[in-house]
Amino acid sequence: MRGAVIYGPKDVRFEDRPDPAILKPTDAVVRTVAACVCGSDLWRYRGIADVPKPTPIGHEYVGVVEAVGDEVTTVKPGDFVVGGFLTSDNTCILCRVGAHANCLHGTGYDGCQAELIRVQNADGTLIATPEHPDQAMVPGILALSDVLGTGWHAAVCAGVKPGSTVVVVGDGAVGLSGVLAASQLGAERVIAMSRHTDRQRIAVDFGATDIVAERGDDGVNRVKDLTGGVGADAVLECVGTHDSVVQALRCARPGGMVGWVGVPHVTDLPQEHMFWKNVGLRGGPAPVRAYLPDLLDRVWTGRIDPGRVFDLTLPLDQVAEGYAAMDQRRAIKTLLRP
Amino acid sequence: MRGAVIYGPKDVRFEDRPDPAILKPTDAVVRTVAACVCGSDLWRYRGIADVPKPTPIGHEYVGVVEAVGDEVTTVKPGDFVVGGFLTSDNTCILCRVGAHANCLHGTGYDGCQAELIRVQNADGTLIATPEHPDQAMVPGILALSDVLGTGWHAAVCAGVKPGSTVVVVGDGAVGLSGVLAASQLGAERVIAMSRHTDRQRIAVDFGATDIVAERGDDGVNRVKDLTGGVGADAVLECVGTHDSVVQALRCARPGGMVGWVGVPHVTDLPQEHMFWKNVGLRGGPAPVRAYLPDLLDRVWTGRIDPGRVFDLTLPLDQVAEGYAAMDQRRAIKTLLRP
Repeated sequence: MRGAVIYGPKDVRFEDRPDPAILKPTDAVVRTVAACVCGSDLWRYRGIADVPKPTPIGHEYVGVVEAVGDEVTTVKPGDFVVGGFLTSDNTCILCRVGAHANCLHGTGYDGCQAELIRVQNADGTLIATPEHPDQAMVPGILALSDVLGTGWHAAVCAGVKPGSTVVVVGDGAVGLSGVLAASQLGAERVIAMSRHTDRQRIAVDFGATDIVAERGDDGVNRVKDLTGGVGADAVLECVGTHDSVVQALRCARPGGMVGWVGVPHVTDLPQEHMFWKNVGLRGGPAPVRAYLPDLLDRVWTGRIDPGRVFDLTLPLDQVAEGYAAMDQRRAIKTLLRP
Repeated sequence: MRGAVIYGPKDVRFEDRPDPAILKPTDAVVRTVAACVCGSDLWRYRGIADVPKPTPIGHEYVGVVEAVGDEVTTVKPGDFVVGGFLTSDNTCILCRVGAHANCLHGTGYDGCQAELIRVQNADGTLIATPEHPDQAMVPGILALSDVLGTGWHAAVCAGVKPGSTVVVVGDGAVGLSGVLAASQLGAERVIAMSRHTDRQRIAVDFGATDIVAERGDDGVNRVKDLTGGVGADAVLECVGTHDSVVQALRCARPGGMVGWVGVPHVTDLPQEHMFWKNVGLRGGPAPVRAYLPDLLDRVWTGRIDPGRVFDLTLPLDQVAEGYAAMDQRRAIKTLLRP
């Protein structure tokens, strides 16, 4: 089969790789229907993270089960499936409390931007759709593999509930998904911080009630203007830079909560915006499997279309252009089809 | 009247001060029935915090209302009252969401280790007991002014709920109160980290199911032994040193939550124990007034006796000895009676 391999900065190649096989009785092999490029894939692409050796890449996918190991019982060949960006057994002490991203037996993938994917812990990771979806629904289901699950996790960690006032810091695919999540969880007001008109438009369609284009002190002041002078109940930090974390903490009202899912590149957590203001911080890699049954149902029944974050679709063999487009901000998020 | 004034390290004097008066129509003046010394008072006593000039000290009290301003409607002269360590109007946008410690019009006190106390925002701060309490119940009500409210806040911020497994870091008066709070909130298992047998005894009486005397790596490993290898659902950080915050974060299971109320002296929040483990951190000064009606009811009906944290009672004019006893760890917490 063929798949994407990253060799170093700006160097992603689509090349022949060995076909994945069932190595454990709990494995499945999935034939990819769609995959995509994650903002976190760009760290290596941009040279921010090391690439010590050529490495298969990608961790988001939907597809059709090709083969399963002897112990797999919940999916079978022919099923259309989606799985989160990490595998989980869905039975360990941590999965039982919903912390699937930290599953005691969890694993990653050996590159999902590929024609075939080995999925470990298949029973605890994959969910099959009731039947094969229409092509139009594929992007929405693919978004559950990471980006919507991650935005959802930010909203859950920030304690969004009916009536909440919410700020979303970051207008990338995760931030936009956070807007959708906050809206779905019943937020009364969702303030999206965004400077790009195309992204603002999606944010509004996803449920944003207000757009704040300012950043830094001006952004904080604008949020306070919109929130009775105090800040928001819940803030979703969907970027991960030091400045965005500070921005998020400062946008929270005293007693409020920040959900952070942007992988942090923070030099020093600014306690001065936390303890004395009673502002909390919670988050990390999303336990996608915990949210997947609910989120799949929302997509399947047409209540949400998180696939709108994909604004570029390419053949899988043009994966390198998919990275370049996101790196150069010509695309929010690239969908790839074999 | 007479009251305590701190002049500098190890120098607390009990001396004549002007009688407090009604300065605003929302004020009350309370004649002290009992006051006490807080762990946080010791920072100045120990020279950790500056004392730029002689300053009246103390922020915990119960007493009888002596006078009220024209706009005060919920308490009247003769009422036995308790109030939190900060005043709050109980009506602003932040009080309405339970963030009374950050009330937009909140204030501190001009020294509560005194015979008379001016209480600003009297309606939003004080609660009167149904009748004057027995002497035996006075310490329990006094504990609501700060120490139990603070331990309670730690438990609430850590998300303690029925069935939770909880670790309490710190066996001072706040930590012991945290044990009581966790137990009252339905925790199934409460692991108190304590090296002192007298404090261990109170912890057990307050509902601790396990005692861990070890600290550092040994303490973390012992907690993991007791929690299926993963750590606790909820951890109460009731000290505030860098080491204790790290200890607390490390004792939480992935996806768990740390409630911090020990005023932090932390050089750098250890993100490595937070984001990738999905461990959250929330807390700050306790919104005592938010918890006070419920907590007073628990004391009044005899369900809890948080006053057990007081193990030394002195006449108010011996306040200096009250500080010395706590500084030298001869007492957990000193109660003072005029």
